[in-house]
Amino acid sequence: MAQPQQSEEADTGKPPLRVGMVGYAFMGAAHSQGWRTAGRVFDLPLSPELAVVCGRDADAVRAAASRHGWAATETDWRALVERDDVDLVDICTPGDSHAEIAIAALEAGKHVLCEKPLANSVAEAEAMVRAAEAARARGQVAMVGFNYRRVPATALARRMVAEGRVGTLRHVRVTYLQDWLVDPEFPLTWRLRREQAGSGSLGDLGAHIVDLAQYLAGEQLAGVSAITETFVRERPLPTAPSSGLTAVSAAGTGPVTVDDAALFTGRFASGALASFEATRYATGRKNALRIELNGDRGSLAFDLERLNELSYHDATEPGEHAGFRRILVTEPEHPYLEAWWPPGHGLGYEHTFVHQARDLVRAVAGGRVPEPSFADGLQVQRVLAAVEESAGKNSVYTPITA
Amino acid sequence: MAQPQQSEEADTGKPPLRVGMVGYAFMGAAHSQGWRTAGRVFDLPLSPELAVVCGRDADAVRAAASRHGWAATETDWRALVERDDVDLVDICTPGDSHAEIAIAALEAGKHVLCEKPLANSVAEAEAMVRAAEAARARGQVAMVGFNYRRVPATALARRMVAEGRVGTLRHVRVTYLQDWLVDPEFPLTWRLRREQAGSGSLGDLGAHIVDLAQYLAGEQLAGVSAITETFVRERPLPTAPSSGLTAVSAAGTGPVTVDDAALFTGRFASGALASFEATRYATGRKNALRIELNGDRGSLAFDLERLNELSYHDATEPGEHAGFRRILVTEPEHPYLEAWWPPGHGLGYEHTFVHQARDLVRAVAGGRVPEPSFADGLQVQRVLAAVEESAGKNSVYTPITA
Amino acid sequence: MAQPQQSEEADTGKPPLRVGMVGYAFMGAAHSQGWRTAGRVFDLPLSPELAVVCGRDADAVRAAASRHGWAATETDWRALVERDDVDLVDICTPGDSHAEIAIAALEAGKHVLCEKPLANSVAEAEAMVRAAEAARARGQVAMVGFNYRRVPATALARRMVAEGRVGTLRHVRVTYLQDWLVDPEFPLTWRLRREQAGSGSLGDLGAHIVDLAQYLAGEQLAGVSAITETFVRERPLPTAPSSGLTAVSAAGTGPVTVDDAALFTGRFASGALASFEATRYATGRKNALRIELNGDRGSLAFDLERLNELSYHDATEPGEHAGFRRILVTEPEHPYLEAWWPPGHGLGYEHTFVHQARDLVRAVAGGRVPEPSFADGLQVQRVLAAVEESAGKNSVYTPITA
Amino acid sequence: MAQPQQSEEADTGKPPLRVGMVGYAFMGAAHSQGWRTAGRVFDLPLSPELAVVCGRDADAVRAAASRHGWAATETDWRALVERDDVDLVDICTPGDSHAEIAIAALEAGKHVLCEKPLANSVAEAEAMVRAAEAARARGQVAMVGFNYRRVPATALARRMVAEGRVGTLRHVRVTYLQDWLVDPEFPLTWRLRREQAGSGSLGDLGAHIVDLAQYLAGEQLAGVSAITETFVRERPLPTAPSSGLTAVSAAGTGPVTVDDAALFTGRFASGALASFEATRYATGRKNALRIELNGDRGSLAFDLERLNELSYHDATEPGEHAGFRRILVTEPEHPYLEAWWPPGHGLGYEHTFVHQARDLVRAVAGGRVPEPSFADGLQVQRVLAAVEESAGKNSVYTPITA
Repeated sequence: MAQPQQSEEADTGKPPLRVGMVGYAFMGAAHSQGWRTAGRVFDLPLSPELAVVCGRDADAVRAAASRHGWAATETDWRALVERDDVDLVDICTPGDSHAEIAIAALEAGKHVLCEKPLANSVAEAEAMVRAAEAARARGQVAMVGFNYRRVPATALARRMVAEGRVGTLRHVRVTYLQDWLVDPEFPLTWRLRREQAGSGSLGDLGAHIVDLAQYLAGEQLAGVSAITETFVRERPLPTAPSSGLTAVSAAGTGPVTVDDAALFTGRFASGALASFEATRYATGRKNALRIELNGDRGSLAFDLERLNELSYHDATEPGEHAGFRRILVTEPEHPYLEAWWPPGHGLGYEHTFVHQARDLVRAVAGGRVPEPSFADGLQVQRVLAAVEESAGKNSVYTPITA
Repeated sequence: MAQPQQSEEADTGKPPLRVGMVGYAFMGAAHSQGWRTAGRVFDLPLSPELAVVCGRDADAVRAAASRHGWAATETDWRALVERDDVDLVDICTPGDSHAEIAIAALEAGKHVLCEKPLANSVAEAEAMVRAAEAARARGQVAMVGFNYRRVPATALARRMVAEGRVGTLRHVRVTYLQDWLVDPEFPLTWRLRREQAGSGSLGDLGAHIVDLAQYLAGEQLAGVSAITETFVRERPLPTAPSSGLTAVSAAGTGPVTVDDAALFTGRFASGALASFEATRYATGRKNALRIELNGDRGSLAFDLERLNELSYHDATEPGEHAGFRRILVTEPEHPYLEAWWPPGHGLGYEHTFVHQARDLVRAVAGGRVPEPSFADGLQVQRVLAAVEESAGKNSVYTPITA
Repeated sequence: MAQPQQSEEADTGKPPLRVGMVGYAFMGAAHSQGWRTAGRVFDLPLSPELAVVCGRDADAVRAAASRHGWAATETDWRALVERDDVDLVDICTPGDSHAEIAIAALEAGKHVLCEKPLANSVAEAEAMVRAAEAARARGQVAMVGFNYRRVPATALARRMVAEGRVGTLRHVRVTYLQDWLVDPEFPLTWRLRREQAGSGSLGDLGAHIVDLAQYLAGEQLAGVSAITETFVRERPLPTAPSSGLTAVSAAGTGPVTVDDAALFTGRFASGALASFEATRYATGRKNALRIELNGDRGSLAFDLERLNELSYHDATEPGEHAGFRRILVTEPEHPYLEAWWPPGHGLGYEHTFVHQARDLVRAVAGGRVPEPSFADGLQVQRVLAAVEESAGKNSVYTPITA
Repeated sequence: MAQPQQSEEADTGKPPLRVGMVGYAFMGAAHSQGWRTAGRVFDLPLSPELAVVCGRDADAVRAAASRHGWAATETDWRALVERDDVDLVDICTPGDSHAEIAIAALEAGKHVLCEKPLANSVAEAEAMVRAAEAARARGQVAMVGFNYRRVPATALARRMVAEGRVGTLRHVRVTYLQDWLVDPEFPLTWRLRREQAGSGSLGDLGAHIVDLAQYLAGEQLAGVSAITETFVRERPLPTAPSSGLTAVSAAGTGPVTVDDAALFTGRFASGALASFEATRYATGRKNALRIELNGDRGSLAFDLERLNELSYHDATEPGEHAGFRRILVTEPEHPYLEAWWPPGHGLGYEHTFVHQARDLVRAVAGGRVPEPSFADGLQVQRVLAAVEESAGKNSVYTPITA
């Protein structure tokens, strides 16, 4: 086992928050950036330390530790969650292991950050919520990683909805469009296997947009009607254990056991209507998470491919001068921008993880339930379950059960 | 020296096509522009004449005739369809009168252009198709006015799909967003009454996007799953017979008997997925008919608010240089552009009616079935009926029956 | 039952305004659309009649008359300006004939509309202004055809500047970018010959942007510093008399005697700075007239390739919600929009000529000096002359002399 | 003197590159991010260490060191450049101190990174180039910090120009628009004083766009014609020593001794034309560095406010399908993207400093002259000097002297 070394945060004079991360692929790299940077940019009550990273392949995890700046390594997450020098367990693995790791970590007295979707089933998610509630009584916090709440533009949108600038909500329309499966020769990575990923575009992309839509709307979905589809049902097997979105094709094929695309409509509790589309077959759309809210006082629109911008239409203005304005969300009064660059100097994707780390550190220090909580993650899981149920029952409208 | 002559249509030396138009509000004004202009811009085999316009109020129809340049007036559409000096009847009335007028005109030996939606019910539309087929044997043509097929950009999109530039279709997503009902004090015009309009956003906006989606896809929808909603169920009565989209509010209120918004997902015959949204409550969106098609060779996107542009992503290009390109559809090789202005000098909404007139005149002269035919209009009506059926049955997936 | 009547213009019951047009190429077609449509859309005090069109080639002008709906033809503009049945002479010829025709028409008692640039020299333009002033005493009006003042979005911009929404002006930046000369094989049309066109991109495109910049700013340029360039100095001769922007190449070449591009900076009377660029070599830019004004209270931006939109930044708003808003200039309260289509149904390029006709008819009926007057055209000519002078003197700053 | 501590990079097993940074305001924070992150994301031959940071105020520099993660501090740059544990001196101070620090550091055997503009005068820049050349013989490298060459989209643009995709260059137009001086109450920070900043918008913004234009064009400017202006000549004095772009106003005013805006046109060596505008008064434009290149084979356009995108028009394509395409510069084959996130997950402003650090580390390890070199910085300085000379001589065209 590698030993912790003198870490970069040692000189801040603040109490440390020692992070142990499980998984080190795409999400692991992004979370590493978040933990490394948050305390350098924001004034935090605790100083995050990249204490231990865990992965099954000892050589690979050592290389990742060296690359990303983690002081020590583990090859068994069970060892990691028991370490005394870890305060918070950050779970960056595929969804099938979330429940087991998170519950063990909470029972071991750790704070937990768990990547989305919270779990691969409602039952798992319910168990995680129970564990989080028990841990909360012990002062531990648990957060699920819906990082797109922490784009400054979406956080501004939430603030504006809360201020009443959208008014009575009528419509929410959201798409999350990617195109990395258009090529039928793209291999069968773990994201295309139900046993690991739980679902396909639904759990990966749909979870994000369900959470974001409910977060921005400030209310929950009451029911959904859904269609799902798997366009390419057989794909080449990867040669090596795949990680993240890239993989190498190999001889032999296997069945795709998750959805390629999921479309659903729904009703919010207030009666507002919603439409959702998650797909990996939207040729030319790389990361097009787009959301628009229409209310009787205004509208908001956001596109993740232009994440420094928020569109806003103020319906209380005279029609002669009204129009969707492009707010460049880089002003010091915008969420998270107090610590960054001058106006017009935009942020990128990974900053959402810096902001997530910031907010989680503050929640830990303040003993507050962080947003989004495991309960929020469970509720998203219930929506996803209703989507799958509706899709399996001829799209019939399916209420979200609490 | 040549002498001044009387009529601008008299001197073309071409046989006339004498048009009798029923209705003279918004659509009547637009059609008048189309008939007046088509022969001035395009080289047509027949010379359209604005012969007779018909409306119930004699003074109002005379004023409209004077304004729009119609040579004569009628106050009873039955008289108009019987006139010997009318070759083609152009129906610009609300949907409840389409079937009766169109069938009478066809039986009277006239060509017919009928505004969309073709009818307020499938049964009416079927009767219209039968009348059109009978008339076709006599050399008459019948067209339904889905004018958005005739934006140069959508016509180019159709051409590109037919050339295989989109490839195997995976997704079609369409919205038609307007916002003129956001104000609950907007009065109860004919468009909000089921007995006249048949339906609300569904027949008005939804008919357009169903037709356009199927036209561009080159295939038909197999089934739909739908939600509809009426957000504001009681509105002030208008003081005077309303026309078009504007009206004056008055004392008293009445029930809105049509949908304010309709959302539906669907499957194309090929297995491609589709999503549709038609609404009059999308605050800040004035005429946002937006359609995107994703296939395995490319994608196309169009926005009616920027109607001189077509977005195209060519997936056969190397990723390094690929991207959605904005084609400014104003080049001489683009559809309908051979007769207009130099590149970059854009067209507007009304040009779709000029193009519609052009194509219909050519179909009349050539004895060809025009596109979109009454059969096309009937098929759209069947989709709308399936949408209403699904919305009434808890959104259950409802096949489109032939 | 009303009887069909002859001419669409004959039945308006309004006094006619009989137009005689000289030239029938690109501008002639556009003006024809304007005259034909203005009285059909707007409520005008006089009813424009397309009385006589004039061109040197008898067959060609007869064909043009038939196509565009002119009642009679002439082959000598001197005959046209003397006709008793012509009230207004509309000059759509190259710049070298503007002065002679306009002065003769004014002396013959006609109103005059003259395409831009007003003339090919300051001296000619001065003579035209003197003729217009003399004619004004006789109740005649004279207008120069800077049609881009009559895009609803630019007219709205002017209104907003006049209302103080831009405040103290700091910057005006304008480009007019086209690309039809990028191909060195494009032939040597009249627009590339100094003796006919006066100048190249400067008089064609530069005249538009100088006029528009001064119009929107509400003030005049005090001086300029300029660079001009001819990139391709020899081009193939056209086979036939060229018209408009299209032509056929032929054997033999000849020298390009005008500028291909003109760049200049300048100062407004108030001290605001300006930059201008006019070119026919901006590959991919088809008709990109773009103007932006920055003042201490706000900014405005316009792009002719998206002519139904105006961008506006209100600097008096809190920074948190401020941003350039895209005003879709299609609302009934917007300039010229009272008579057109519902919100979101955009207009096109040719509508500027309809609006020009509308405003000119009203000026004629009201006996008012129309905007832009010949004096306005002369002032633009003086700016263009200063540009050429500066370009010839090593770009030295050259004041605009009155 | 603070002692170096065990630093975050100690565990990479690579030789260190120990950085000593002078200045810790806006640029210092950005450079810190760059040094901290480069080795975590890219595979570098040396491991950057944040060794020493230097500032005049001991308390402030200690706070900055703690915040940004520097192991030690100095209060005198002369001490810093003499330290044995510093390999590279990174100069983030105002321009008036660049020459002195850089020359001393080079003479002390250090590699140097110097923020732009290289110096406040051509003479200083020449001395710096001489020092860099002498140091080069000793294996030292010297780079000037034109970080906007290292946006992936601009780097891709450079690659595409080099591949001939733009062809013979005709036009380059560049603006760098900000608006932070619109408010006349914004205080007189060091950026508004000639003795510290050298010039105003010219050296701050103009230096960037002159460098970027020449870099992308692949050639140098031959001469310029310029206008400069100071709109607000007196401003409130700041209460405290100002840093960066933010400051607090105070009692009393002082004269602004630099330009607020600079506009210039120019000619490239090849005959292509260029226009430049740098201003801090473009209301609503926050960081709008926009550049467009037009050549006979294609065009490129970039906007720093949307820095993950590059627009490209390929003029060799048939006009029917041609258009400016929006390349989302987030693909693995794009410059710098091999190490970042999946497609569509955009980067931000600070990443340019990570890339700068990457490239400089590799130059140091490889003993190569980095781009942009001090010689490149000197050449930009000569352009800026010609701009000021032209502006002082009635805008007369002023050649750039070598």
